[in-house]
Amino acid sequence: MSWPADNKVLALCGGVGGAKLALGLTRVLSPDQLTIVVNTGDDFEHFGLPVCPDLDTVTYTLSGLSNTELGWGRQDESWHCLETLEQLGGETWFRLGDRDLAIHLTRRALFDQGKSLSEATTAICAHLGISHPVVPMSDAATRTIVDTDQGELSFQHYFVREQCQPAVRGFRFEGAEAASPSTEFNKALEDPQMAAILICPSNPFVSVDPMLALPGIRDRLIRNSAPVIAVSPIVASQAIKGPTAKMMNELGLDLSALGVFRHYGELLDGFVMDEQDRELVSDFPDPKQLHCCNTVMQSLQGRIELAQQCLQFASRLG
Amino acid sequence: MSWPADNKVLALCGGVGGAKLALGLTRVLSPDQLTIVVNTGDDFEHFGLPVCPDLDTVTYTLSGLSNTELGWGRQDESWHCLETLEQLGGETWFRLGDRDLAIHLTRRALFDQGKSLSEATTAICAHLGISHPVVPMSDAATRTIVDTDQGELSFQHYFVREQCQPAVRGFRFEGAEAASPSTEFNKALEDPQMAAILICPSNPFVSVDPMLALPGIRDRLIRNSAPVIAVSPIVASQAIKGPTAKMMNELGLDLSALGVFRHYGELLDGFVMDEQDRELVSDFPDPKQLHCCNTVMQSLQGRIELAQQCLQFASRLG
Repeated sequence: MSWPADNKVLALCGGVGGAKLALGLTRVLSPDQLTIVVNTGDDFEHFGLPVCPDLDTVTYTLSGLSNTELGWGRQDESWHCLETLEQLGGETWFRLGDRDLAIHLTRRALFDQGKSLSEATTAICAHLGISHPVVPMSDAATRTIVDTDQGELSFQHYFVREQCQPAVRGFRFEGAEAASPSTEFNKALEDPQMAAILICPSNPFVSVDPMLALPGIRDRLIRNSAPVIAVSPIVASQAIKGPTAKMMNELGLDLSALGVFRHYGELLDGFVMDEQDRELVSDFPDPKQLHCCNTVMQSLQGRIELAQQCLQFASRLG
Repeated sequence: MSWPADNKVLALCGGVGGAKLALGLTRVLSPDQLTIVVNTGDDFEHFGLPVCPDLDTVTYTLSGLSNTELGWGRQDESWHCLETLEQLGGETWFRLGDRDLAIHLTRRALFDQGKSLSEATTAICAHLGISHPVVPMSDAATRTIVDTDQGELSFQHYFVREQCQPAVRGFRFEGAEAASPSTEFNKALEDPQMAAILICPSNPFVSVDPMLALPGIRDRLIRNSAPVIAVSPIVASQAIKGPTAKMMNELGLDLSALGVFRHYGELLDGFVMDEQDRELVSDFPDPKQLHCCNTVMQSLQGRIELAQQCLQFASRLG
């Protein structure tokens, strides 16, 4: 693949699915060419510690530390603190591993030293040997609130404690209106060398929409000269992981790649969907906006290939 | 030993040495007969978590969970969080074990629910199966500051980070003047059935003096009709554990049980010292104030026996 050395890429990324594509991108682009902006709408305080699930999934994935068996958290994890917490009558619905705890403690300490979330993330990435820039969407707190048939729930209560069982009616992003995009997110959006903006195959509602809810971001993406390309997290009417499909059903949306495309609307210049969904192509308004390839990243090679496919498609569109 | 069922005992207790005698007392007194008041001058916030070393040592000791190999912390401890913290560039001078962390997280959560340190301690003790009341000296923060030849140091920085190396010049107890004794401490001091007040063999300067620095406590102990009895933490001019002896040297005090007795001064009605120090008896102003016995609690039986000796002595004095 030939991607010009001067051309830059911005990846908007949630948790697991997004992190896989982000990993692929780090293998085909230099640290100077890539900025990975990560959703922080899932973040919450637990036991006074700042927990940033998407940032941590991305950093664990990029540093080779992710727990591939569990599909979340760190590898070689132990649960002694959590076991003891249970004996002490503490809350254990959020599964804090002993090693994972260290990243939250580190962030707490960096915050207490006056560091921003961006600075804390940079420090953590440096210690984990991650050379590509990973930045939070904002240094200000934005909290995804899920409106459900059981009332409003904070995201982690919905996602982890209630295991996505309540039916979803909508979302709001508390604090988003007042949250400035992080410096590096702003910088990437203003970079004249920006040549592709990739929306990773993350949950559109709770991983990507929180970023789009930040003041001005949606408009700035639309106006950006770089093509904005989303990779569908829905393949053959199913989500690879997580509650995206369940949410689309509950929201009365078309449970398909086309439903995802429609959700993003005018934001998109291009859309990457899986070969398994090729039959849907004729339902889209403009086939030139589409690229079909294997999007199910089952190996590192699969992640790299999807990254290459996205960049080639961006070159064609750009 | 016959200790009247109506007679109550108040134990003032620091960390390891004090906890041993407290354990002995729990084996000879009912939960109704005993109140264990614990020093909180060592407490500090670490990674945003409230760490209460003396309270934790007492609760681990009373629940049979203390790490007898290390001499501090919990048994069956693992260090995965700390190892990871080190990899992330975090502070590791305070050795937080994975299981130990859970007690600090639990306390954080209870504080965040609006519970006081007394309430949090009661909740933790209940979960650990401790039926004797263990209470902090105060619900307000009091922080021991050590004045050293390297300037003022917070207690844990002096004790753990600097491993007691700096030479001590004095102490102050930040916040003590404004800190009320805890409800249960007050209640014990006002209890007409109080028949013995035992100052456990803890460090006089940093475990006991913080309690005496609380408003009115010293006077109320002196005026109390129950005899106030201290057990010497110095045996044969040595401290069983910790920096008591080093501190006495640096403060220019007589490094002996007599030096401890003089430090407490008019507070004491009785003083328990080790048989090894029997030759010192003639140096004391009043031999009736003295009781010599084995104070080196090398086994559970030794702890129980010292508890019994203290109560018998209190009966004689009272």
